[in-house]
Amino acid sequence: MAPSFAINGAFPSARVTPPSVTGRFAAVYSEVQNSRIDHALPLPSVLKNPFIIVDGPQSSAAGNPEEIAKLFPNLFGQPSAALVPSDSHALPVNQKLKIGVVLSGGQAPGGHNVISGIFDYLQDLAEGSTLYGFRGGPAGIMNFTYSFVYSNMVVWNKYFPFTVMLFGGFDMIRSGRDKIETPEQFKQAEETVQKLDLDGLVVIGGDDSNTNACLLAEHFRSKNMKTRVIGCPKTIDGDLKCKEVPTSFGFDTACKIYAEMIGNVMIDARSTGKYYHFVRLMGRAASHITLECALQTHPNITIIGEEVAAKKMTLKDVTDYIVNIISKRAEDNYNYGVILIPEGLIDFIPEVQHLIAELNEILAHDTVDEGGLWKKKLTDQSLKLFEFLPKAMQEQLMLERDPHGNVQVAKIETEKMLIQMVETELEKRKQQGSYKGGFRGQSHFFGYEGRCGLPTNFDSTYCYALGYGAAALLQSGKTGLISSVGNLCAPVEEWTVGGTALTSLMDVERRHGKFKPVIKKAMVELEGAPFKKFASLRDEWALKNRYISPGPIQFTGRGSDAINHTLLLEFGAQA
Amino acid sequence: MAPSFAINGAFPSARVTPPSVTGRFAAVYSEVQNSRIDHALPLPSVLKNPFIIVDGPQSSAAGNPEEIAKLFPNLFGQPSAALVPSDSHALPVNQKLKIGVVLSGGQAPGGHNVISGIFDYLQDLAEGSTLYGFRGGPAGIMNFTYSFVYSNMVVWNKYFPFTVMLFGGFDMIRSGRDKIETPEQFKQAEETVQKLDLDGLVVIGGDDSNTNACLLAEHFRSKNMKTRVIGCPKTIDGDLKCKEVPTSFGFDTACKIYAEMIGNVMIDARSTGKYYHFVRLMGRAASHITLECALQTHPNITIIGEEVAAKKMTLKDVTDYIVNIISKRAEDNYNYGVILIPEGLIDFIPEVQHLIAELNEILAHDTVDEGGLWKKKLTDQSLKLFEFLPKAMQEQLMLERDPHGNVQVAKIETEKMLIQMVETELEKRKQQGSYKGGFRGQSHFFGYEGRCGLPTNFDSTYCYALGYGAAALLQSGKTGLISSVGNLCAPVEEWTVGGTALTSLMDVERRHGKFKPVIKKAMVELEGAPFKKFASLRDEWALKNRYISPGPIQFTGRGSDAINHTLLLEFGAQA
Repeated sequence: MAPSFAINGAFPSARVTPPSVTGRFAAVYSEVQNSRIDHALPLPSVLKNPFIIVDGPQSSAAGNPEEIAKLFPNLFGQPSAALVPSDSHALPVNQKLKIGVVLSGGQAPGGHNVISGIFDYLQDLAEGSTLYGFRGGPAGIMNFTYSFVYSNMVVWNKYFPFTVMLFGGFDMIRSGRDKIETPEQFKQAEETVQKLDLDGLVVIGGDDSNTNACLLAEHFRSKNMKTRVIGCPKTIDGDLKCKEVPTSFGFDTACKIYAEMIGNVMIDARSTGKYYHFVRLMGRAASHITLECALQTHPNITIIGEEVAAKKMTLKDVTDYIVNIISKRAEDNYNYGVILIPEGLIDFIPEVQHLIAELNEILAHDTVDEGGLWKKKLTDQSLKLFEFLPKAMQEQLMLERDPHGNVQVAKIETEKMLIQMVETELEKRKQQGSYKGGFRGQSHFFGYEGRCGLPTNFDSTYCYALGYGAAALLQSGKTGLISSVGNLCAPVEEWTVGGTALTSLMDVERRHGKFKPVIKKAMVELEGAPFKKFASLRDEWALKNRYISPGPIQFTGRGSDAINHTLLLEFGAQA
Repeated sequence: MAPSFAINGAFPSARVTPPSVTGRFAAVYSEVQNSRIDHALPLPSVLKNPFIIVDGPQSSAAGNPEEIAKLFPNLFGQPSAALVPSDSHALPVNQKLKIGVVLSGGQAPGGHNVISGIFDYLQDLAEGSTLYGFRGGPAGIMNFTYSFVYSNMVVWNKYFPFTVMLFGGFDMIRSGRDKIETPEQFKQAEETVQKLDLDGLVVIGGDDSNTNACLLAEHFRSKNMKTRVIGCPKTIDGDLKCKEVPTSFGFDTACKIYAEMIGNVMIDARSTGKYYHFVRLMGRAASHITLECALQTHPNITIIGEEVAAKKMTLKDVTDYIVNIISKRAEDNYNYGVILIPEGLIDFIPEVQHLIAELNEILAHDTVDEGGLWKKKLTDQSLKLFEFLPKAMQEQLMLERDPHGNVQVAKIETEKMLIQMVETELEKRKQQGSYKGGFRGQSHFFGYEGRCGLPTNFDSTYCYALGYGAAALLQSGKTGLISSVGNLCAPVEEWTVGGTALTSLMDVERRHGKFKPVIKKAMVELEGAPFKKFASLRDEWALKNRYISPGPIQFTGRGSDAINHTLLLEFGAQA
C-alpha cells in the first residue's frame, strides 16, 4: 500500500471540548474528578508518529486447532499485527470511517478511556469520521432495528464528553450481559451494522464477549460485508490475558482500591489487637485479584482457589489451614490478623460442588422432613460435609433458592461461613487445651467498590492506547483481532501496539453435543512468578506481621505510576 | 512571667531520624507510605514563632454549672487559654519535661501525628525532655505498677519513629477502652505518674476519655501533684466538638474514605442500572459521618438518625420514605440508586428500643414456645413492630444474644433489614398496581476501612498542631484543658492554637442516684448549616441523579487540601 499521507512529529491535538455539557452529565464534579479532566494522556511513541502495520506469522489456536479452523473458516490462522514506526503512514486518504463501539459485561475502570482513544484516533487520523456508541451492551446492537434510529445509541463526531472520560464506570453508554448467539440475533446485528453502514465495531469485554466478537467478525467476513470487528480486553478479574495481551484493563485499579481498604483494615487489626478480619474479594472464576492484593499488602493468610483445587483440599482442610496459623499466632500473643478469600472459593472445592448438586436433586424431588430423614439420601461424603457446616450455612443452603429451585451458590457469604467454621474448630481446640487465644472474626466483602473507581494512571493510559490501537487496526482493514498493547512495564513511550488473532486464544468446549469456541479463562498459574513469589513469602507473613498499607490511589506524585505486582512479575523482565 | 528565652523566626528542625528501625516496624512500606514520611507538616504561624499564653474570661459549664462546680472544685471555672504571638517566649529555661501520652478508645486516623506533635514540641522548646507512651490505652497507666518498668511503655527522648507518624492507626502504642473510674484505679494512676515523675499527661480520646482526663486532672490537682493533664479531641464519629473545638480528628479522613467508596458504588449503580445499594456507615451515636458523606456524594436517599428521632419516625415511616422515592424513581425508569444509613439508626427509633427492652425481659423470664403464645406478652405496639420485621430479623432478635442474654443491637445489620422491608413493601405496591419497577438491593457496611487510613493532609496537620499545642499548654502549667486548634477553614498559618476548659464542655447525668459528669455528644443539629444545606438539596438528589464521585484521597495536587463540608458550613464564615 502506498502511503496516503505523512505527518512527522506529534499530531496536533484534535480534541474539542463541547461548548456545554447538558442532560445527565450536567453535574458538578469533585475536585479530583476535575483534575482528571485536565489530565493529558500520554500515547506510546509508535502511535504518536507515522506507523505501518506489519503482519506476523500465521497463528494457530490455544487448543484443538482443527475444530477452531472449522468454526472460523474465514479467520482461522490470521497473523498477529504489529504497529511499527515508518517514515509515513500507509492509510487511506480522506477516508471517513463509521465505527461502532459497545461495552459488554461487568464494569471495569477505564472503559470510557477506550472509547475516547477510538474517538481521538478518528479525529487525528480519519477526520470527519463518526463514532456510534451502542447503549446497554450487545442488546443495543440487536434491538437497534426495533427502536427507531439513535434511540439506543450515542453519536459522536465532532464532540466527545471528555468530562466523563477519566471517571470510571460505564455510565456513558452503559453495559449489558446479553450475547449475540442465535442465527436471528446474528441477523439482527448484521442488519444494524448495515443500516449504519459501519466500517468497524469495537467490542469491549471479557472472554465471552471477545469470543462473541470473533464470531461476529467471522459472520461478517463470511458474508463479504465490509464491517470489521476488533475486541478489547476488559475485566477486573484479570483472567483474560496471554502473552500478547499482558493484562485486562480494570484489574490494576480494582486491585489498588481493594488493597487500600485491606491495608487500612490491617492497621486497624494491629491497633486493636483483637479481630481477625476475613476479607472476601471479587473474582469468581480466578483468584488473580486475591493474589495481587496479597502481594500488595502481605496478609497473614491468603486462600488461592487454584491451589485449593490443585491440592484437592476439602473445606475442612481450608479451615484447618487457617486454624493452624491462628493457633500458632496465639502463641506469640497475636490474636488478630487479616485473611483474604477469593469470591469463588467454594467453586474450587469439589466436595462442595457435589453436595450442592445432591441437594438440588433432593430438593427438586423430595420433601424435606423436620426429623432429617431426607439426609439419608445424601452420599456419605456429602452428609459429612453438610454436618460439618455451621447451622446458618445449612439453613442458607436449604432455604435460599433461585427461581429454578437451585441453591444460590453466589449468595453464600464464604467469609462468614469460614468465620463460623474457624470459631467452632478453635473452640474444640481450646477445650482440648491446644489453643489458648481469643478469637473474634469480622467479615468484609470488597467488590462493587472496585469496579467503577477513577482509573489509575496505568489503566487510563492503557485503555486509551487500547482504543487508539483498535481504531488503527480497523482503519487498516483488520478484523477478528483483539487490541494488544504490550511491554507495559516499560515507560509508556516504549509500549508496543498491535492486534492478536482472537482465534489464536481459542479452544473448544463440548456443549449439547456441539463444539463451542471459547477463550479459556487465564487462571492463576501455580508455577507462575506471582504465585511463586507469594508462596515463598506467605509463611513469614503468617506469623510475623509484614503488613503494607498501600494507601489511596494517587494521580500525581510518588506512587502514581506504580505497576502492579502481577504484571511486574509476569512481564517485568521484558522492560 | 519573664521570658525565659527568645527565638525569632522559625525553629530549627529538631527531628532526628532513628539510625535504624527494628522490631515490629522493620517493614517495607508502600511508595505512598514512603512519600508521607518525607511530607513536612506545616505549623500554624503562632507555633512557629515566640508566643505567650493569654487567659480568657472565667468559664462555666454546658449544663448544671452548680453540680459541675461541686464535682470539680479545683478546676471549675478555668478560663480558656490562647497562644498569641509575642516578642519572646515566656517559658521556663532549660526545663526538661517528662510527659506521658495515652490513646484511648476507637482508632482514628492521625493519632500518631498528635504524638509526634508533642515530641517535636519537646525537641523544639524543652530540649532533653522525655515522652512516655503508655501501651494499650488507660490500662497501660493503671497496670503500670504491676508489670515491671517500661514493659507496657514506649520511651522516646532522642529518637521518634517518624516512619509510622503519617500512617494512620494506633499501632505504635495501641489503644484501649478501659476507664480510670474507681478510687483504686485513680490511686494506681497516681502511683504511675509519680513513679515516672511526670510533669504532664496527654489523653487522646473521645467524649468519655476527655471526661476521664478532666477527672484525673482534678484528682492530681486536689492532691497538689505537679502532673497536669491535657485532652485531645479524637473520634471519626465527629461528635466531640464545640465552638472552640471545631472538629475531632479522624472525621475528615474517615468521611473521605467512605465517600470514595460511595462514589464508586454510585457510578456502578448508574452503569448497571439495576441495583439499589444500601450503605450503612459507621457512627453509632450521631449521624455526622452519614451527613458529611451525603454532602460529598449526593446520594438519592440519606437517613439522618437525629431527624428520625426528632420526627418520632417509626421503622415503617423510614421504610415508606425510602419506598416512596424508589417508586417515584421507577416512573422515570431509574431502578437503581444509592441509600446512606447511619450505623446507629435503630437507636434513634423509640419503638425499636421498646421492643428490644420487652424482648429482653420476656427472654430472661419466660420460655419461648414455638406456637408463638409468648408474643402475647408484648405490648400491642411492640407486637405490631415485631410482626412487621422480616423473618430473618425476627430470628436474629430471638437467637443472637450477648453473654447476659440480651439482644445484640450492635449486630443488627440495619442495611439488610431495610432491604428486606423495602422489598416487601414494594412487592405489596406492585400487586396493588402502584409500583411497576424492578428492585434489587445490595448491602454494604463501611466502617473498619476508615478508622486507620493514611490521614488526609488536613488530619495530619490538624493532629500535629493539636499535639504541639497540647505540649505547649502543659509546659505553661495548664491542666484540665482540651487542646483547641481553630480557624481551620483558613490557611494553616492562620490557625489559632489554645486550650478550652474541659469543665466548660460538661453537663451532669444522674446514674445510680449520683451525678456523673459527661461531655455531651454533639449531635447533628437540625438547625445547623450542614443539615440545612442537605435538606435543601435532598429532594433534587432523590429524583435526579446528582452523584459526585470524590475519588481517592490525594496527598499532593488538586483536591489534596480540600476542607470537608461540615467544617466549611459550620465554620467557613470565620475564614
